[in-house]
Amino acid sequence: MVVAAAILPELATQLVVPVAAAVGIAFAVLQWVLVSKVKVAPEPRGEGGSAGGGAGAGGKDGASEYLIEEEEGLNDHNVVLKCAEIQTAISEGATSFLFTEYKYAGGFMTVFAVLIFVFLGSIEGFSTKSQPCHYSVGKTCKPALANAAFSTIAFVLGAVTSLVSGFLGMKIATYANARTTLEARKGVGKAFIVAFRSGAVMGFLLAASGLFVLYVAINLFGLYYGDDWEGLFEAITGYGLGGSSMALFGRVGGGIYTKAADVGADLVGKVERNIPEDDPRNPAVIADNVGDNVGDIAGMGSDLFGSYAESSCAALVVASISSFGINREFTPMMYPLLISSVGIIACLVTTLFATDFFEVKEVDQIEPALKKQLIISTAVMTVGIALVSWLGLPYTFTIFNFGAQKTVHSWQLFLCVAVGLWAGLVIGFITEYYTSNAYSPVQDVADSCRTGAATNVIFGLALGYKSVIIPIFAIAFSIFLSFSLAAMYGVAVAALGMLSTIATGLAIDAYGPISDNAGGIAEMAGMSHRIRERTDALDAAGNTTAAIGKGFAIGSAALVSLALFGAFVSRAGITTVDVLTPNVFIGLLVGAMLPYWFSAMTMKSVGSAALKMVEEVRRQFNTIPGLMEGTAKPDYATCVKISTDASIKEMIPPGTLVMLTPLIVGTFFGVETLSGVLAGALVSGVQIAISASNTGGAWDNAKKYIEAGASEHAKSLGPKGSDCHKAAVIGDTIGDPLKDTSGPSLNILIKLMAVESLVFAPFFATYGGILFKYL
Amino acid sequence: MVVAAAILPELATQLVVPVAAAVGIAFAVLQWVLVSKVKVAPEPRGEGGSAGGGAGAGGKDGASEYLIEEEEGLNDHNVVLKCAEIQTAISEGATSFLFTEYKYAGGFMTVFAVLIFVFLGSIEGFSTKSQPCHYSVGKTCKPALANAAFSTIAFVLGAVTSLVSGFLGMKIATYANARTTLEARKGVGKAFIVAFRSGAVMGFLLAASGLFVLYVAINLFGLYYGDDWEGLFEAITGYGLGGSSMALFGRVGGGIYTKAADVGADLVGKVERNIPEDDPRNPAVIADNVGDNVGDIAGMGSDLFGSYAESSCAALVVASISSFGINREFTPMMYPLLISSVGIIACLVTTLFATDFFEVKEVDQIEPALKKQLIISTAVMTVGIALVSWLGLPYTFTIFNFGAQKTVHSWQLFLCVAVGLWAGLVIGFITEYYTSNAYSPVQDVADSCRTGAATNVIFGLALGYKSVIIPIFAIAFSIFLSFSLAAMYGVAVAALGMLSTIATGLAIDAYGPISDNAGGIAEMAGMSHRIRERTDALDAAGNTTAAIGKGFAIGSAALVSLALFGAFVSRAGITTVDVLTPNVFIGLLVGAMLPYWFSAMTMKSVGSAALKMVEEVRRQFNTIPGLMEGTAKPDYATCVKISTDASIKEMIPPGTLVMLTPLIVGTFFGVETLSGVLAGALVSGVQIAISASNTGGAWDNAKKYIEAGASEHAKSLGPKGSDCHKAAVIGDTIGDPLKDTSGPSLNILIKLMAVESLVFAPFFATYGGILFKYL
Repeated sequence: MVVAAAILPELATQLVVPVAAAVGIAFAVLQWVLVSKVKVAPEPRGEGGSAGGGAGAGGKDGASEYLIEEEEGLNDHNVVLKCAEIQTAISEGATSFLFTEYKYAGGFMTVFAVLIFVFLGSIEGFSTKSQPCHYSVGKTCKPALANAAFSTIAFVLGAVTSLVSGFLGMKIATYANARTTLEARKGVGKAFIVAFRSGAVMGFLLAASGLFVLYVAINLFGLYYGDDWEGLFEAITGYGLGGSSMALFGRVGGGIYTKAADVGADLVGKVERNIPEDDPRNPAVIADNVGDNVGDIAGMGSDLFGSYAESSCAALVVASISSFGINREFTPMMYPLLISSVGIIACLVTTLFATDFFEVKEVDQIEPALKKQLIISTAVMTVGIALVSWLGLPYTFTIFNFGAQKTVHSWQLFLCVAVGLWAGLVIGFITEYYTSNAYSPVQDVADSCRTGAATNVIFGLALGYKSVIIPIFAIAFSIFLSFSLAAMYGVAVAALGMLSTIATGLAIDAYGPISDNAGGIAEMAGMSHRIRERTDALDAAGNTTAAIGKGFAIGSAALVSLALFGAFVSRAGITTVDVLTPNVFIGLLVGAMLPYWFSAMTMKSVGSAALKMVEEVRRQFNTIPGLMEGTAKPDYATCVKISTDASIKEMIPPGTLVMLTPLIVGTFFGVETLSGVLAGALVSGVQIAISASNTGGAWDNAKKYIEAGASEHAKSLGPKGSDCHKAAVIGDTIGDPLKDTSGPSLNILIKLMAVESLVFAPFFATYGGILFKYL
Repeated sequence: MVVAAAILPELATQLVVPVAAAVGIAFAVLQWVLVSKVKVAPEPRGEGGSAGGGAGAGGKDGASEYLIEEEEGLNDHNVVLKCAEIQTAISEGATSFLFTEYKYAGGFMTVFAVLIFVFLGSIEGFSTKSQPCHYSVGKTCKPALANAAFSTIAFVLGAVTSLVSGFLGMKIATYANARTTLEARKGVGKAFIVAFRSGAVMGFLLAASGLFVLYVAINLFGLYYGDDWEGLFEAITGYGLGGSSMALFGRVGGGIYTKAADVGADLVGKVERNIPEDDPRNPAVIADNVGDNVGDIAGMGSDLFGSYAESSCAALVVASISSFGINREFTPMMYPLLISSVGIIACLVTTLFATDFFEVKEVDQIEPALKKQLIISTAVMTVGIALVSWLGLPYTFTIFNFGAQKTVHSWQLFLCVAVGLWAGLVIGFITEYYTSNAYSPVQDVADSCRTGAATNVIFGLALGYKSVIIPIFAIAFSIFLSFSLAAMYGVAVAALGMLSTIATGLAIDAYGPISDNAGGIAEMAGMSHRIRERTDALDAAGNTTAAIGKGFAIGSAALVSLALFGAFVSRAGITTVDVLTPNVFIGLLVGAMLPYWFSAMTMKSVGSAALKMVEEVRRQFNTIPGLMEGTAKPDYATCVKISTDASIKEMIPPGTLVMLTPLIVGTFFGVETLSGVLAGALVSGVQIAISASNTGGAWDNAKKYIEAGASEHAKSLGPKGSDCHKAAVIGDTIGDPLKDTSGPSLNILIKLMAVESLVFAPFFATYGGILFKYL
């Protein structure tokens, strides 16, 4: 069947993957060391220049390294102390949230681990005897009980990796925020470097550790499984489920946290008390800044880590029953991991373009620098994919295609990965077009504020709906090409292609909230408005890239879900999912409804949590004497606790919906209906997710467009406080839960249901559909 | 294969259908005569009492028949003259819109008729020779050219029937509005009767003429086709396409018209000039009142007529290749028409409960009276269905099921029709629960106005999303049951079951805008506020029933589309639509995107059209001296013309999207991808349609809840003009295009694409998919 072998020998593969992971981790540590050179402690004048400027020490702009505060006669000593104090408060708040979350996540993990073990172990009645294989005819495979045990271990590994990466990401982000503020005193370029390097720590750490743990797990599990790759990679899918279920906590819980704090702080502070954003008198201000980290750092990180782990698992499980797996060809089997390995190196090279090869000096160079990161990483990675496909694959091989085997060439697989990679770029730029106020769509929305909030909302909703068109065509084209060329394996590697530049993507994403926090700290520390202007410029660029990141996360979620769906269907032994059967069609219809149900829940969650915050903030303003005058300090910790508790509590209903739906549908209605549900949720959810994110992003930037007043048109709508601006603020507030909670949470809905179905597929295939069986 | 025959002989069937249609038409005429007894002309005192009270003459409340105006010392003579004048203006505006629409609809019809003829005729190269049948093995069928010609004729028939029914409906509605106002002087019960009877004229006329024309067409076409039922009923599907494509003009064009006028009138009148709603000084006020008729009467009527025609055609085309058709059993073949015949009689009986058996005396009896109509018609019709299924069907028969034949019993078909009927009722009541301010969901939305417009919008959107859940389960259950029992025929008759009470449904629906207009006329004629209170009470009940009607229209559209989809798939010769193929999957994904694209277009259309209206109204206020003082009359006709022209122009992009998508996808990508597109658009579109309608309805009633201030809670949010109320008004304005344009227009999107695919199925099956064939 297969003639040629891969050029790369097994030993080389066994080296390349862990080395790439190690390089990624080392690079992350290096970035961290560079960031840590900025001291958040007052220093005697004279040393400050060289210690604080460590990142660019001895650079050509050394002459200009004076601090703005000194120029304006502010006391630098006190400002630094104040920054350090605020940073500690934010960091402690974030840590307190994470530990509370871990307590619940731990409980959830334990229960679900038991569930996995019991469900999967029960398939052969907990027998410890080896069984004939499903796909490799004539061979014997390990018992279902072993698969249950190893799936459970993989699940825990995935969950723990996600948690640890999220924790470290939050730590570095809350470590970097005040440092960015302090560097902003020296110039926008220096502040940019600190924020971006810190983002890179998060990006590389997550990408590299995700790869490393997966690699180690495969090798360790392999010691037991030996020749039984079918069982080995079935068990490995637990890794994806683990990563993804922690993303439920990160994305949904984090999303509720950040918006409860944000909306709660704004409703009392801005609206009732008329104090500016990030004012230290607002008791919810620390919770708000913690929320940026919780939602956009930990949430986005866990979401993308989940996607990465899931697409790798989906690719591996399909490969294990294709010629790679059947013929035990190690290097091509590891193709998904090789792609990710090369991705780390490509992103490393790309990062140097932002931090070393070029230098950001002006405010208007920030956004181009970030966008160049996307383009460079995509271009470099295209070469990388070509290389891996040439070296890591035999020229011809076969791929499992729902009951049949399909012949594929290595260059076709290159196309699959590349189309995913480039589709991600297209989605990113379209998202930018619809959410950046440099282009006409957002300007039209801003203009519609002339006739009030209602037209602003109508135009914003219409913009979100419209922004779905091209991304969907891009995703559809990637799916069509990869699916046609290499069936579900093609879709899985297309998803991996989109995620191969994850390190750069996450660096850019994490950069945003760090800059946002930096601005908040500048405000709270009472620093000069020129510092605030610089951090605002950093933040504005971060807003656009955040929207791009969300588009990217949704696009990859769609591909990943389809790949998982394909793997599920393969594992469940279904060869067709026919819309022309009642079981499948009602699944499709109900599945398409789930994103609405889920969104209704998450939106309500934000509302309830924000209400609790409003009450507490009001209480503090009413009962703490001297708070409004600035003579007494608010009780930040209570607000942090309220956000934390509310977000955990409010994520239970949507979390339950996601976790129970596949179990209930699979057990009672069977695998056909479950297939319909997964397909319906996927095709419907991706649309709402894109439109919700872009609508929210557009409203946010329409408001910023009016506030900035950078053009004649913008000036005619402003200034801050005008009727137009008030209408724009209403839109922005509506958009908050859409773009930061309900929209991105849908990624988790569609992915988690799919990966859960995949893990439980053997159980459903054996015992599922009891309602139809016994009625 | 089939043993028993139907109890009802062919001759009886040939009598029952036209007689039921004739009874329906006669009943409509009778209702019209009763309404016409209210004179819209001043009369000498003394006669007024008996002539005006014609409907309830000699009733027990004859003693109370004094006119409020006289009591309040107003000059009755002038008021009546004024009412007559306003009525004429509205009627002329509506007629002018319809004739403009007909001009364009006529052009469209001609072009599309040619397209149908050419596409379908080309299948066998315009050969005039008979061909072997597709399904009846060994028999010869009429040539494709004949099918092309008869399909074209059926298309024109369907279109013309829809247009004529819509025209007559509009005429009676604009005939009844001033009469309702005048009767309101005598009491709320009398006004209710006039409005409801007029609605019934529309309902019965449409249901009966739809049935009658279909019946005549089948018999006339049968003269040519003779034994070739396959060809006969394939040609008949053109009737559904004709009805549905006129619904594109009615629903989409009408939806844009009504909201452009409404939003335009409000933005200048209420917001800029601070004059009340329906103030005669507002130049757009007549256009606004015309819009109510155009959107809610003609639009809803054409939508439901389209659904009725389509579900009948879908049922007939599947039946023609089932045992009924193969064995040429006329009575069971006519089962869909028999259902509709019995439906007319059941609705007739139901109507008497509202107009004769009981009497509405108090304001709070109105809504229960309307809801009872739904319950009674459903209960009576259940008996009717049982009767038809017993008499009109053999006990056992076979139904075509994607390449196979499935054995079905008559009681199973009864269950199919009944489940559709009852699902409609469930959807209606759930819709009421989520949109009426008598229940907590709308009250919660009203309460959220305390914290401003943003929370109002967030809660409203969440309510809309949540309101999707139960209707989808109801639809899914109906589909599952009917699909399982009798394949696509079951789904088609379930849709017919839901639509069997169409006459009552339309009567209730049309009642709403008539009452709305009556209130507008009272305001414009300067009548006492007590009259306005009565018409407002009528209108409030109409608002809730309008929401119910929309839920009902969407639910039936979902069933109809699935039935059409099934008929299309059968006709295109596909036996599976497998999600696990790239062609189908990308169709599903892109199909699920189309409702978003379409909604973005229709929302933008309303925006652009409203803007044109705003400019004209502003121009009149600025250039006509004495307009604000009430000494000069505005130029109503120009506003009517602007609405008319804008609505026709703005419906071109969404209309083009609907009409071209099936043609492009079918021709270039083939029937599998088209199947995916249809299924995707269906499962995604139905969710947005329900949520958009209910969100809009909830915002509208939340505003009314605050305005009415009927409870302690409501009073704490009001009064009119409070901050809460202002926030509620913003929500209401956002909801306008959602609930009256983009939401209901989606019905047309999903139905029209499906029926168009069905009509062109023979062409696509022969020539479709050229992109895949030749690449």
